[in-house]
Amino acid sequence: MDPKQFQIETNSDPNPSTDVYHLALDIGGSLAKLVYFTKDDHFVDGEAEISPRKTSDKSKDNSRNHPVIKGRLNFKKFETSKINDCIDFIKTMKLHLGGSQQQENPGSQPISIKATGGGSYKYADLFKERLGIILDKEDEMDCLVAGSNFLLEVEGDGKFERVSGTSIGGGTFWGLGKLLTKCKSFDELLELSYQGNNRAVDMLVGDIYGGMDYAKIGLSSTAIASSFGKAMSDSKEREDYKPEDIARSLLRMISNNIGQISYLNALRFGLKRIFFGGFFIRRHPFTMDTLSVAVNFWSKGEAKAMFLRHEGFLGAVGAFMSSDKHGLKELLVKQETQQIPTKLSFAVDKMHWPLDGELNGEESIECNVYVT
Amino acid sequence: MDPKQFQIETNSDPNPSTDVYHLALDIGGSLAKLVYFTKDDHFVDGEAEISPRKTSDKSKDNSRNHPVIKGRLNFKKFETSKINDCIDFIKTMKLHLGGSQQQENPGSQPISIKATGGGSYKYADLFKERLGIILDKEDEMDCLVAGSNFLLEVEGDGKFERVSGTSIGGGTFWGLGKLLTKCKSFDELLELSYQGNNRAVDMLVGDIYGGMDYAKIGLSSTAIASSFGKAMSDSKEREDYKPEDIARSLLRMISNNIGQISYLNALRFGLKRIFFGGFFIRRHPFTMDTLSVAVNFWSKGEAKAMFLRHEGFLGAVGAFMSSDKHGLKELLVKQETQQIPTKLSFAVDKMHWPLDGELNGEESIECNVYVT
Repeated sequence: MDPKQFQIETNSDPNPSTDVYHLALDIGGSLAKLVYFTKDDHFVDGEAEISPRKTSDKSKDNSRNHPVIKGRLNFKKFETSKINDCIDFIKTMKLHLGGSQQQENPGSQPISIKATGGGSYKYADLFKERLGIILDKEDEMDCLVAGSNFLLEVEGDGKFERVSGTSIGGGTFWGLGKLLTKCKSFDELLELSYQGNNRAVDMLVGDIYGGMDYAKIGLSSTAIASSFGKAMSDSKEREDYKPEDIARSLLRMISNNIGQISYLNALRFGLKRIFFGGFFIRRHPFTMDTLSVAVNFWSKGEAKAMFLRHEGFLGAVGAFMSSDKHGLKELLVKQETQQIPTKLSFAVDKMHWPLDGELNGEESIECNVYVT
Repeated sequence: MDPKQFQIETNSDPNPSTDVYHLALDIGGSLAKLVYFTKDDHFVDGEAEISPRKTSDKSKDNSRNHPVIKGRLNFKKFETSKINDCIDFIKTMKLHLGGSQQQENPGSQPISIKATGGGSYKYADLFKERLGIILDKEDEMDCLVAGSNFLLEVEGDGKFERVSGTSIGGGTFWGLGKLLTKCKSFDELLELSYQGNNRAVDMLVGDIYGGMDYAKIGLSSTAIASSFGKAMSDSKEREDYKPEDIARSLLRMISNNIGQISYLNALRFGLKRIFFGGFFIRRHPFTMDTLSVAVNFWSKGEAKAMFLRHEGFLGAVGAFMSSDKHGLKELLVKQETQQIPTKLSFAVDKMHWPLDGELNGEESIECNVYVT
C-alpha cells in the first residue's frame, strides 16, 4: 500500500557517540514514542531500491540545488508506565541536547523539545526536573495528521476533523489480556494470539444454530455471534481456557470492532479507503488481516483498509516536523559555511525493509534534510 | 417512553393447576425465553391505572362486541446452557399441552409449538424426545419485529432490514465477567457492577493528560480513553482490582460500544430514535442510562435511546403472535358456546409496574384475548 520500502536498524544497543540532532516525543496513555534524526557520515547507497519518481526527482533536484544532510529518522518506543526508562534513554543518548555539540554551549536558554500526546502535559514537570528541558506541546491530532502526510508523502493541507473514536483499542487488548493471561507485555500477548483459536472462547453462529448458518441474514456458521460467549458456560473456569485462545479472541473482538466503527464512520463521508494507525497494529500481519477482513465484511467489499509503516509513530513524526530544527540549521551552517537557512525540509529518499517484516518499534529510515 | 404500566407477578413458585394456554419459545445463545398465556378467572380491576385512550377504547369496544378471555401473558427465562431446566418447567406446568384440558385428548396429532432463535434448530430433537412436541420454527428477525410491534402497539407492516450487528453484547459481558470475577450468574454480575467504579480499571482522558481535559476535541478528563487501559499497569495483578470495578468497566465498555454502533447505523438512515432490546438490558436502570448517555454523546444530543418493557422477550412474543392459538380458540368455544372463531387478537388493556422497578425475567402482564 505504501510504495516505499524501509531499512530497519534495531537500536537495542544505542551508541551515544552517534551525532544526534533534533528530538520529538509523543507520550500517549500506553506508549511513549520518540523520533530523532541522526547524521550519517557513512551513508552507503548499497542495494537501495529505486524510490518513487516524485521523491527521487525531488531528491535529485534538491541535492543539485541545496545543501543536504544525509542521515536517519530513528524511532524508539517505551511503555509510558516506565517513563523514567524513556528519560534515561534520552539522557544517555543526549537526545535532548539537540546535537551533542550543543553541550559546549552551557548557560544557553533552556532547551525546548517538541512533544505531543497527553503525557506531554502530565510529565512536563518530570522532564524539566530530570533533563532540564521544556516540553513544547503540540496538539495530538495536528501531529497525527502532519505525521501521516509526511509518511504518506501526500501534500495535505493539514485540515482534519475528528469524527469519532472508541475506548476499545490497544489499551483494552493489553489490559484485558493482562488480567486474563500471564503475559508480561503487549508483544507477548500478540505473539500468543497467533497460536490460539477463538472458537474455543467465542460463541459462533453455528454454536447457536446447531452447526447451521443463519442464512436468511447472511451469517455463516463460523461468524462470531458473541465474543467470549462460550465463556459463560457454567461447566468451565478460567483455567479451563487456553491463554492463546483467550488472546486470539480478544484480538479478533477488538480488531473487528475497530474495523466496524471505522467503516461506519467512513460511510458518513463516502470514503472507500480507511487508513489505520497506532501501536495496536504496528505491522502485525494478523492484526492487519483481521482489520482488513472486518472492513471488507462490514462494507461488503466496498471499503478497503490501508496501513502505514511506522503508523505507531505518526504523532511523534508530526511533532518532529512541527519544530524549527535549530540544531540541524546550525549543523548545516557548519557543514555548508553559509547563512542560517530560513526553512528546512525533510525528504525520505530511499527505504528498505527486512524480509522478516518484524518490527519491534526500534527502527530507522534513511532521510535527508534539505534547505528549501 | 412506553406509556403503559405493568403489573408484575413473580412466578418463582409456579402453580401447575393454573389454566395454561398457548406457549411460544425463543431460544438464543445465552437465554431461552418463554411466553405463555394463562386464563385469569379471578381478574380484579383493582387500582388499575387508566390505560391509554386508544387501548382502553379498543378494549371497551371489544368487550362490548366480542367474547373475551381475561388472562395474562407470562414471561419466563432460563439459561440456554440449562435447557433441561426449561424443559422440566414446561413439563411441570404442562405448557406444551396448550391448556391442561388437552391432556384428555390422547392420541391426537403431535403438538407443535412456535419457537424461534438458533436453539429452536439446535434443540429440536431434545424437545421432541423429552416432551414429544415439534418446534415449529419462525425466523428470529421476523419474530423480533412482530414482538416489537405488539409491545409498542404500533401497526407495523412487518418489513425490516438487518443493517448491522456486533459480537460485543450480553454474552461478552457475561463471558468476560465470568472469567474475571467469581460471579455465578449474569444478574449477579450486573448487581456487582452497580457497586463498582470503572475509574479504577479504565484509563480516562484525565489519566493521560495529567488530570486535564483534551478540550480541543471536546473530551472531558472523565471520558474513557481506554477501557481496561489501567489494567495494563505492570505493578498490579488481577487480584488487585475489585470485582465490582471490573464488572462496572465491562458494563460501560459494552454499553458505550452498543450505543455508538447503534447511533452510527441510525445515522445512515436518518433515524433519531433508537429502540434497544435484548436481555442485556431488561430494564436495568444503569444499563439503560449508559446506553442513553452513549447515544446522546455520540449523536451530540441528536438521537435518543428508547427502551421497551419486556425487551428481552420480543422474539418470544413474536413467535407467540405468529401462531394459530388453537388452545385459546377451543377455550373460547367452551366459554362462549359459539362457533370456532376465525381470528383471535390480543390486547394489553391495563398494566402496572412495581415501584422498585426490579424485574428478574419472571413476570406477567394482564392481557385479553378477543375474537375479531
